[in-house]
Amino acid sequence: MKTPSSLDFLAEALRRLPGIGPKSAQRIAYHLMQHDRDGAAMLGRALTEAVERIHHCASCNTFTENEICETCLDPERDAALLCVVETPADQLMIEQTLTYKGMYFVLMGRLSPLDGIGPRDIHLERLMRRATDGVVQEVVLATNFTNEGEATAHYISETLKARGLKVSRLARGVPVGGELEYVDAGTIARAMLDRRST
Amino acid sequence: MKTPSSLDFLAEALRRLPGIGPKSAQRIAYHLMQHDRDGAAMLGRALTEAVERIHHCASCNTFTENEICETCLDPERDAALLCVVETPADQLMIEQTLTYKGMYFVLMGRLSPLDGIGPRDIHLERLMRRATDGVVQEVVLATNFTNEGEATAHYISETLKARGLKVSRLARGVPVGGELEYVDAGTIARAMLDRRST
Repeated sequence: MKTPSSLDFLAEALRRLPGIGPKSAQRIAYHLMQHDRDGAAMLGRALTEAVERIHHCASCNTFTENEICETCLDPERDAALLCVVETPADQLMIEQTLTYKGMYFVLMGRLSPLDGIGPRDIHLERLMRRATDGVVQEVVLATNFTNEGEATAHYISETLKARGLKVSRLARGVPVGGELEYVDAGTIARAMLDRRST
Repeated sequence: MKTPSSLDFLAEALRRLPGIGPKSAQRIAYHLMQHDRDGAAMLGRALTEAVERIHHCASCNTFTENEICETCLDPERDAALLCVVETPADQLMIEQTLTYKGMYFVLMGRLSPLDGIGPRDIHLERLMRRATDGVVQEVVLATNFTNEGEATAHYISETLKARGLKVSRLARGVPVGGELEYVDAGTIARAMLDRRST
């Protein structure tokens, strides 16, 4: 007995999704064919369209359907501030805070030598050109506070400071709503070192 | 800031997959656009093709690209035996045992009144016509040994026996390799009741 080839192909293609193994792929394929053909057709169109239309903003490197993304074209934004984030999801989180009105540069990754991800893979040369355009005054490093994110921030900071730019980093400390009893010692140590006069 | 609409559409479409919430959908969409565009294009094609080509076998109701599936057309198979399974995945498992050479009927579900799944949803009328074609001598019920599967088997069994057909059910008992200490009491009780002379 053979499964129809287009069903096999579908199960195989579903395995390209992160975290989907062979059994799940087969179950999802059967589910879609049996219970949600509209969903399958819609997802098929969505994937094809996204692959055709989505590329990187020539200015900030985020995902966009245009040459330059809407954020970069917005004349209301402060062109003297440039915030560096790892991913578009991080950029979205910062936007949701409504506390930042400058520009962005999206690395689409982080330095991670162990995974073979070097400065070229996160477009650092483009970031240098972007940051030294004469308009940008301050670069805010908003990479994650993981080991790789910190290393990336450190590397970018050193390179930009060598070119005379002002570089800042998101503040570290106790999270809003945090109870000291349940916050890890490293965070409290950092918050103590970075304490501010009130 | 707005995410590009085709990326939003992709994240929304990914949520149609079972077990994918909004955060995962966004993460998968970003992952595909950043790291696996070939995979995304391939999955898009696979979905579109599968929706176009896959339908149900007119005879056994399994998924096929043809009018009648290969298994039903195979002249080597014993047309006097009809095995009833819930899904094509179950059918595949039985095929892999190499112990059965008869025909199949795939319900594509199980009776589940609480979920509103009645006899019509699992094509029982078609099964009745198929089983009473004059060639089928014995119907082997291979639905799952869950509550719903057992109820489905019972319902089908009563209906078919009323029409004078021989109906059998897969044997229940201790699994191969099973240690009595770790097998549940219900299974052992069943194995005791169904004990066979050696």
